[in-house]
Amino acid sequence: MSVLVVGSMAYDAVETPFDKREKSLGGSAMYFSTAAGYFTDVNLVAVVGDDFLHTDIAFLKEKRVNMDGLTTEKGSTFRWGGRYLENMVDRETLFTELGVFEAFKPVLPESYRNSDYIFLANIHPTLQGEVLKQVNQPKFVALDTMNFWITGTPNELAETLKMVDCLVVNDEEVKLLSGETSLFRGAKKIQAMGPQTLIIKKGEHGSILLHEDKYFSCPALPIEQVFDPTGAGDTFAGGFMGYLAMTDNIDADNLRRAICVGTAMASFCVEAFSADRTRALEEKDIKERLALLMDLGRVSTDNMWIV
Amino acid sequence: MSVLVVGSMAYDAVETPFDKREKSLGGSAMYFSTAAGYFTDVNLVAVVGDDFLHTDIAFLKEKRVNMDGLTTEKGSTFRWGGRYLENMVDRETLFTELGVFEAFKPVLPESYRNSDYIFLANIHPTLQGEVLKQVNQPKFVALDTMNFWITGTPNELAETLKMVDCLVVNDEEVKLLSGETSLFRGAKKIQAMGPQTLIIKKGEHGSILLHEDKYFSCPALPIEQVFDPTGAGDTFAGGFMGYLAMTDNIDADNLRRAICVGTAMASFCVEAFSADRTRALEEKDIKERLALLMDLGRVSTDNMWIV
Repeated sequence: MSVLVVGSMAYDAVETPFDKREKSLGGSAMYFSTAAGYFTDVNLVAVVGDDFLHTDIAFLKEKRVNMDGLTTEKGSTFRWGGRYLENMVDRETLFTELGVFEAFKPVLPESYRNSDYIFLANIHPTLQGEVLKQVNQPKFVALDTMNFWITGTPNELAETLKMVDCLVVNDEEVKLLSGETSLFRGAKKIQAMGPQTLIIKKGEHGSILLHEDKYFSCPALPIEQVFDPTGAGDTFAGGFMGYLAMTDNIDADNLRRAICVGTAMASFCVEAFSADRTRALEEKDIKERLALLMDLGRVSTDNMWIV
Repeated sequence: MSVLVVGSMAYDAVETPFDKREKSLGGSAMYFSTAAGYFTDVNLVAVVGDDFLHTDIAFLKEKRVNMDGLTTEKGSTFRWGGRYLENMVDRETLFTELGVFEAFKPVLPESYRNSDYIFLANIHPTLQGEVLKQVNQPKFVALDTMNFWITGTPNELAETLKMVDCLVVNDEEVKLLSGETSLFRGAKKIQAMGPQTLIIKKGEHGSILLHEDKYFSCPALPIEQVFDPTGAGDTFAGGFMGYLAMTDNIDADNLRRAICVGTAMASFCVEAFSADRTRALEEKDIKERLALLMDLGRVSTDNMWIV
């Protein structure tokens, strides 16, 4: 099965305590596709300006990414600039220049309309909803959002949330969206808004999946030095959705496996600027990382004092 | 096998956003023993003042806790007062009255000297070292400490660390003790100081075990409402050490199982003030909680795309 992603293509300026890069390929749709393309065909929907160098994403075409939905408009490609603090978690946004992204109206090519797996990256919730109106009965729809939309467009977000199966957020966003101080009470409250599946990203602390009434906790890999966390969340989503689409299975056990695949992919992303590391993987790299992750959480209960 | 614990007995005054209690039984040795006593015989070393009501710990005697090492001195029992903030993680200390704890010099009863499993709760590192000089070749020694000793008595702590197998700390303490901003680089640096086993407690985010060159990540149970986190770390240590002593096995797999037992015990501790919940458990409660924890981290790899 193929996966459709709608999101941003961008040029980022990223500073970390170790290094900086003035113009780095970024954007949620880019990070997502780079990861998902290892697992399945990806139908990408995004917009770039006429300053965009298409050679920068030639590597996506060599993977399994269909670019029919990438439009070029007159103007500048979306730019984001940020600086990470010493802990490599907190960051300040230095600038956001929307450019052609400001007037982005995703229109799906005819060939995309039967996509079964859909990822709505972090854009205006009304646009996310517009995408869903253009597809025929998808099997599994996941949505990412952020505090900006949760507080700025709560009604639009609530409308769109009714139509999605899975919400991908971080722990702060769960609390903000639900109005609960308890993460776990908040998660259940969000289920009542629509999505029966929640993925709560906690960065270095891993992630939590709530599916129906069961939790799954997936650790993050022990990375000695995070180099650039930009795009890790979308890379995670790419691994997660790509694996689901590849296996075409959304049962509880497979969702857990997909979370593990997403976690492994995200661990590569933080090791370099942009998708520099993620785009150059071999199958054995991914399998090795997954095997490490499996060992990280392994408990042998053969001799355990439990029923 | 029995486990020996040296630490504090205290009366705490605890305030949370939900409730408060003026005089609550506390202290690291109390929390530790309450949990460890479900698994093995516990030899307790602590001091209380002549204001201490021994009926408050009658429940410990009914478990498997040997009180020969509990001395009563003229003066006040150690008192600590604290207030938890809305997130139930951050807290302010309102007062600390050391009382008889200030002149605490742990002396081990003869019957304790062959203890194989030893837990040195968070006290002055020189006192922790004095305890080790009084025991005959223990099998496994674990030590807890805090920022106060890491910055205040670094040389004394370094001396004692050379004699222990396992250090139990939180993530901030790893960074402080190692001088590293990376948790995982810091952990390895601490191994070079002595302990080959490190347990990094991350509260709601679970814990990480570093044993020799392998990491194990254990999630925390999804608690919808933490009621009082006081003592959770010592309760964790009690479950961990109690299980190790019961099974008398310190191999890599059993350390992982012990971490799970500690995690399950800590999850009870936060559900009520003091050890109110932890002291009243039945074996089936613990087994049920452990089964929940096992399911929380479970990944079925039968059909997974990994080697």
